[in-house]
Amino acid sequence: MSKVNPAKKLLMIPGPTNVSDKVMNAMLKAMISHRSTDFTALLESITEKSKYLFQTKEHIVTITASGTGGVEAIAFALVRPGDNVVVPVYGEFGQRLAEAIELAGGNVVKVFAEPGNVPRLDEVKEAIRRTDNLKAVYTVHNETSTGCAIPYVQELAKAAHEKGAFMVVDGVSSIGGYSVPVDAWGVDMCVTASQKCIAAPPGLVIVSLNGKVAEFLKKTSPTVRYFDLGKHLDFLEHGFTPYTPAVSLYYALDEALAALLEETLEKRVARHVRCANQLYSAIESMGLEPFAEKSCRSNTVITVRCPKGVDDEKFREILEEEHGVVITGGFGPLKGKILRLGSMGNVTSANIQTTVDAMAKVFSKLGYQVHHKPIADVAVRGP
Amino acid sequence: MSKVNPAKKLLMIPGPTNVSDKVMNAMLKAMISHRSTDFTALLESITEKSKYLFQTKEHIVTITASGTGGVEAIAFALVRPGDNVVVPVYGEFGQRLAEAIELAGGNVVKVFAEPGNVPRLDEVKEAIRRTDNLKAVYTVHNETSTGCAIPYVQELAKAAHEKGAFMVVDGVSSIGGYSVPVDAWGVDMCVTASQKCIAAPPGLVIVSLNGKVAEFLKKTSPTVRYFDLGKHLDFLEHGFTPYTPAVSLYYALDEALAALLEETLEKRVARHVRCANQLYSAIESMGLEPFAEKSCRSNTVITVRCPKGVDDEKFREILEEEHGVVITGGFGPLKGKILRLGSMGNVTSANIQTTVDAMAKVFSKLGYQVHHKPIADVAVRGP
Repeated sequence: MSKVNPAKKLLMIPGPTNVSDKVMNAMLKAMISHRSTDFTALLESITEKSKYLFQTKEHIVTITASGTGGVEAIAFALVRPGDNVVVPVYGEFGQRLAEAIELAGGNVVKVFAEPGNVPRLDEVKEAIRRTDNLKAVYTVHNETSTGCAIPYVQELAKAAHEKGAFMVVDGVSSIGGYSVPVDAWGVDMCVTASQKCIAAPPGLVIVSLNGKVAEFLKKTSPTVRYFDLGKHLDFLEHGFTPYTPAVSLYYALDEALAALLEETLEKRVARHVRCANQLYSAIESMGLEPFAEKSCRSNTVITVRCPKGVDDEKFREILEEEHGVVITGGFGPLKGKILRLGSMGNVTSANIQTTVDAMAKVFSKLGYQVHHKPIADVAVRGP
Repeated sequence: MSKVNPAKKLLMIPGPTNVSDKVMNAMLKAMISHRSTDFTALLESITEKSKYLFQTKEHIVTITASGTGGVEAIAFALVRPGDNVVVPVYGEFGQRLAEAIELAGGNVVKVFAEPGNVPRLDEVKEAIRRTDNLKAVYTVHNETSTGCAIPYVQELAKAAHEKGAFMVVDGVSSIGGYSVPVDAWGVDMCVTASQKCIAAPPGLVIVSLNGKVAEFLKKTSPTVRYFDLGKHLDFLEHGFTPYTPAVSLYYALDEALAALLEETLEKRVARHVRCANQLYSAIESMGLEPFAEKSCRSNTVITVRCPKGVDDEKFREILEEEHGVVITGGFGPLKGKILRLGSMGNVTSANIQTTVDAMAKVFSKLGYQVHHKPIADVAVRGP
């Protein structure tokens, strides 16, 4: 028998997020053949619900992989050697998106931002205007490494389309925590992952793509196999995935999407906004400083400058061991400088209160005195 | 709430296979951060047990993907544009392996076989001898599409090494149902998947690779990202996977490997041999003809020629709907011509009896009379 059996903790990290018992238990449903009508029914159920999530009438593809695999899929779907692509880069995941496009052979025109901010819209639009033979604009919607989100996806889509280019969005940490109506905004392709705002276990990605992308996939040769979205579309016509899917995770995803439909997307997004605001208010009320600029700070990933004299790793270790609350730190150039909190998926105001209380205690323990009030006093009101 | 809830059936297909309740329930363990010491402990536990399975002291890498993803990983790990690679092709999965290598830029020298057989060893050795600048020999060990297995992996490894080339094995449907001592046989890299002989849910692949491969990965640039085994090795040094793993499936894999250790590999392989022999005997006793040549027929995937006048799809439909037994058919050129049975993972003699009884009844129902005896009368004896 396996000896590994960790204690359950409150996950306030940007994925994996806390999964409800109902969704966990869905994994216990019968193991089935992935070439059965039962699997087709499961896939169709997920597809229909995902269309609601992405607010689309177009295509939905699911793949057994982590979010990074999904980003690789969207990069290799459209980018061929020599293609010009504009990418706003405002953190680690924007950098990784650019790298995936470069690996596919694309020439990436990057538009950078100051740390904790997003690129200026006019600068991105200028890059789009001045890039000849532009194939696509790819952007991360919500940058998990900095806690910033770009508020101008729709404007980028318009600018891309004026140049005859595709608009593609990495919505891994945003879809479900933000409303991203891909059809209305003109987002030709968008990807998210199961373990973020959807609150299913990790291991699956969902891609929305429209007829324009489907047509491109039909008429061009793929340069990848496992992540070949064209092949996925072909198999979807028969109700299947091309390769053996992680059946148990599909059950969990279907249950998690059912919970999303029951809550409604509108209320789920409102809950993410409320919890994020409660967290930002509490942070500021503690005398701490959010890392992201107010104009672009995220609904789903909250970043805080680590106060001077507080050891980031030690802080997180005590928070986890003594209070059962898991948050994470910065990485790359932000290592040791910021704390990052995921506030997504099933997050509630009670979770925020627990987290803030525990953080205040650990700051005190480490000799850093913070002002601390119940979040009801400082938060945006909500149910 | 999700409305999808299929009935549990006896899966006699080559994956997904029947998963024990203990392994299913392991998926309910606490959701954890993939950057925690808890996850490191889980990964180490899987790694240690996998070393036992592959009979290796070298490296083990796990990836969230289907078996096809794992095959892509082993292909892109070593093959660079212009590399010469010899591949015995004796079915659909050999063909796919060759395609993955070609996608990586390799020139593939294919050695074919008659349907239902494997290439002759001397022909493969001759191809190895006459190929200049040979980079590697890649082979499927057990061909799921035809029910044939090559009995000469060790000889191929010797021939490959004499040419200074790597030996790589796709053991997706063999590892656990066969003893494949990769270190002793000189297999430099080998891949398997969670949902076959290991009897865990689908969604994970396990790769064994030795120091020679690790060294090659260190000194060359990767041409893939998600499936970059070099990056996986780098992260393993810190106890992590590079990208968010399917945590729940890792728990299940650890539990399934624990069951394998408790049974012992030796006994698990013997059980696969016994069940396969019982199935072959019963098939022949029914007057049916196995598709694979006796000299190379598989321990894990049993193929049978579909008797004249029996509609393969109808047969399988009745078998599943009236008897709850799921088998599969041929694909590609073998569509409608053969029946394929997975006899792997947790398979028992009782499962074989149930399957054979049900098959006999459905053959009768369809007007095809078969001789049918309890398997105890015809089978190789065993516990």
